[in-house]
Amino acid sequence: MDLYGRDLICTQDWSFSELVAALDLAARMKRDRFSARWASILQYKTFIMFFYNPSVRTRLSFEAAATELGGHAQFMTPSAGRFKTQQQAGETIEDAATVMARYAAGIGIRILEDKVPYYGAGDEMLLEYARWADVPLINMADDRFHPCQALADVMGWAEWYGEGPGRPDYEALRGKKFLLAWGSGALARSWCSVQAALLIASRFGMHVAMAHPEGYELDPEVIGWTQANCAAHGTGFDVVHDPDSGYEGAHVVYCRNWVTPAAYQDGVLQKQAEIEKAMAYQGWTTTAERMKRTDNAIFTHPMPVDRGSEVTDAVASGPRSAIYDIAENRLHVQKAVMALTMGNL
Amino acid sequence: MDLYGRDLICTQDWSFSELVAALDLAARMKRDRFSARWASILQYKTFIMFFYNPSVRTRLSFEAAATELGGHAQFMTPSAGRFKTQQQAGETIEDAATVMARYAAGIGIRILEDKVPYYGAGDEMLLEYARWADVPLINMADDRFHPCQALADVMGWAEWYGEGPGRPDYEALRGKKFLLAWGSGALARSWCSVQAALLIASRFGMHVAMAHPEGYELDPEVIGWTQANCAAHGTGFDVVHDPDSGYEGAHVVYCRNWVTPAAYQDGVLQKQAEIEKAMAYQGWTTTAERMKRTDNAIFTHPMPVDRGSEVTDAVASGPRSAIYDIAENRLHVQKAVMALTMGNL
Amino acid sequence: MDLYGRDLICTQDWSFSELVAALDLAARMKRDRFSARWASILQYKTFIMFFYNPSVRTRLSFEAAATELGGHAQFMTPSAGRFKTQQQAGETIEDAATVMARYAAGIGIRILEDKVPYYGAGDEMLLEYARWADVPLINMADDRFHPCQALADVMGWAEWYGEGPGRPDYEALRGKKFLLAWGSGALARSWCSVQAALLIASRFGMHVAMAHPEGYELDPEVIGWTQANCAAHGTGFDVVHDPDSGYEGAHVVYCRNWVTPAAYQDGVLQKQAEIEKAMAYQGWTTTAERMKRTDNAIFTHPMPVDRGSEVTDAVASGPRSAIYDIAENRLHVQKAVMALTMGNL
Repeated sequence: MDLYGRDLICTQDWSFSELVAALDLAARMKRDRFSARWASILQYKTFIMFFYNPSVRTRLSFEAAATELGGHAQFMTPSAGRFKTQQQAGETIEDAATVMARYAAGIGIRILEDKVPYYGAGDEMLLEYARWADVPLINMADDRFHPCQALADVMGWAEWYGEGPGRPDYEALRGKKFLLAWGSGALARSWCSVQAALLIASRFGMHVAMAHPEGYELDPEVIGWTQANCAAHGTGFDVVHDPDSGYEGAHVVYCRNWVTPAAYQDGVLQKQAEIEKAMAYQGWTTTAERMKRTDNAIFTHPMPVDRGSEVTDAVASGPRSAIYDIAENRLHVQKAVMALTMGNL
Repeated sequence: MDLYGRDLICTQDWSFSELVAALDLAARMKRDRFSARWASILQYKTFIMFFYNPSVRTRLSFEAAATELGGHAQFMTPSAGRFKTQQQAGETIEDAATVMARYAAGIGIRILEDKVPYYGAGDEMLLEYARWADVPLINMADDRFHPCQALADVMGWAEWYGEGPGRPDYEALRGKKFLLAWGSGALARSWCSVQAALLIASRFGMHVAMAHPEGYELDPEVIGWTQANCAAHGTGFDVVHDPDSGYEGAHVVYCRNWVTPAAYQDGVLQKQAEIEKAMAYQGWTTTAERMKRTDNAIFTHPMPVDRGSEVTDAVASGPRSAIYDIAENRLHVQKAVMALTMGNL
Repeated sequence: MDLYGRDLICTQDWSFSELVAALDLAARMKRDRFSARWASILQYKTFIMFFYNPSVRTRLSFEAAATELGGHAQFMTPSAGRFKTQQQAGETIEDAATVMARYAAGIGIRILEDKVPYYGAGDEMLLEYARWADVPLINMADDRFHPCQALADVMGWAEWYGEGPGRPDYEALRGKKFLLAWGSGALARSWCSVQAALLIASRFGMHVAMAHPEGYELDPEVIGWTQANCAAHGTGFDVVHDPDSGYEGAHVVYCRNWVTPAAYQDGVLQKQAEIEKAMAYQGWTTTAERMKRTDNAIFTHPMPVDRGSEVTDAVASGPRSAIYDIAENRLHVQKAVMALTMGNL
């Protein structure tokens, strides 16, 4: 297996054994976090983090990852330069990406739906960067996908169903029920994290259930891939439109707000309209009562958590909450991905 | 003495011998700045600098400190994320701090009075971060305290009354007269640095004198601690309300503008009103003439200096100005504090 | 030759052999980029990058340079502090620079014409920083000069006329024709890069030709130095006012937009007026047709390229385009300059 030079735009682009290779390395790195053997991997090398959208966890975890690999992550935003758009003269992606690749061992980009003219345009921009950059391009969340979050998620679930932190058991996830539940709230959230979760859960052999109000469908292509992943494993894919029944027998519960497909219209994110629409669906919240219907499920969330709307404090801070472990796993999986794609392993 | 894992919110929280341990290590680090023995202390480790308020010296000195300890300081501002406030949904301090502690060996926070709804709320926020973060929390200046500035101050005074840079003599400060004089100017400055200076000067056995117009009283609790520190040493604590008499016999002169207690009202910093109020007190400036009344005092200031208002150029750039040495000491004391609280010493 | 402690404000300040020393080291560093021998040069040391104006390439390349030398470059902007100006109280350059020099092994500053009250004021500010800072001051582009771009330019030209990347032949440039052509476009660009190119081309023994519409004259002092450099080498200096004839027999073609001297008036950059003025000169573009008149010239540009206005895609992405190699050379020349002026070589 040789992942050197590979991009990571979506987990679907990597084979199962490639994903497992990254996850296995991540677990080794977690068990032995500051070992000298990781510190030469990116020694004296630069990773460029290009944030069209700001972020806390993504920034902190990628920058710490580069540091722990002996390198350095540079923080950059588009405001630092003049980039070509349909409205203004400026630098092309061809030029920007080609030059970045001369300086850096790898490039990460984050671009969400509010920075692009239509759904999918952010992901297309990443592919354009990847086309011109001679070094690996890592998706730090775009409008469609969030592969590093997905890897952190599945590692966390496998730790909780395995032998604990740094001891994930991916076999243990096979046949378990993964519930993705829409969550109430006024945050009008992106699809990238929840779509990434659908793809990775189905990829690792879990039954997938989705619960959301009608009208909150996700990207049909992602749903299609999820169904295909399930079909390959012989697992089920179910959708319900009530806030309760999906919890029945679940092993992993993921509850998060997201927008409707109508959010992406006419090149403008309809954020206010989406907030008003979401207000009609109060109480789509993961509560201790609902968790009782599950098979002692763990609670998972990519953070930041909208406490009180998506999940109650009792669940988010409770004994079956995996949220902090998964947030920590961002660091470990990103170290592993950087090491395998950019490093001198 | 084991400071590993300890927070530094206010110098009053540390015992005298703990403060001296940090200061002694700072002096050793200053004498031998780039020794290899410091460079493994934070090797491959991350220190998160979270700036609610911007800063030059604090940013530069903490980031350089992490670099010189072999680690890396990440620069973060709240604009990078959506944090919960009374007005908006967002991430709780519980969640933010818990996750930061998974990535970093320590966290520094700077938050001044203009970012919080009432005096003391910044300090309370730091305590809330410290409650949830499993790693040391360093106060990089809040609305009440500025402990790293205080340590740099007293180290500088002790160098000038000792054997010079890197050779402080803390015994030499006992019984010396410390003057904290209010300074003219339109900067409507925070209380944190001057309160930190009162606490540290009194803690190290100095007589404390304050000179300020009536109405410019500081936090009564801080004044009470200062008086208690003086009482424990048998030294005096005096307040005068004229711009001249305080200089008599002083050994260390600190002149800086600050706001009245009325600045903190109704959740809004009354900056313009404070500037107008301060305009009534012209000429509260440290001049060469006033310095002649002292016992050959040194001039101290946490910078940035408001030249012409707080102090004349002749004094600020004169032969008894300790301002640059003290600014440099920020680096050394912060290296020492980070090493003792977070490091593999 | 001892460059330790030296500033780099303009290439004219350095002797020819000093420039060559930096360029020779840059080529060695390019050929052997991640050798351990460079990594101790700035180990655990800090380089402060102070950006009054934002930048992509300058930021990325300086920060990567510091990392590859084992050190760390801190990113700072004036918004982080309150600096004294004619309009407001604040910190003096004396104080800011003196303190920065206590923390850092070197300081870089970028300040362009839109941040200063008159042409040349940015360069004067750099000299004022250099006066007070006890460590080397590197010009990361000011309103007059851009010495690191100039070094990257000449290194790239000498690589293309030498034996390729990392194998420059500076002798091969002697007597070659360098064309600096004004370029169409609405970007109202600074003079710093093109003036830097005139100075370095003439310094290395090239014939210099300028082509620009009347009224687009550059700084008379820079033109004078360029003429003196040419005179010292016995090479020519010609100016034409049409978009075609300058290409005749050229070996290096540099085409870039710049403003007229009238842009700098009354303390305000007349950007909109300059854009309108430039609109009268369409078609001052480097095209494949014009390149046919040259002696198989290479195309050079400091980037970002305004494709379609300054140069066509066919030329900018063509087989004789040196633009990416030169962008890469920013890294190598800056590493060399930092190593020689600040390092433990």
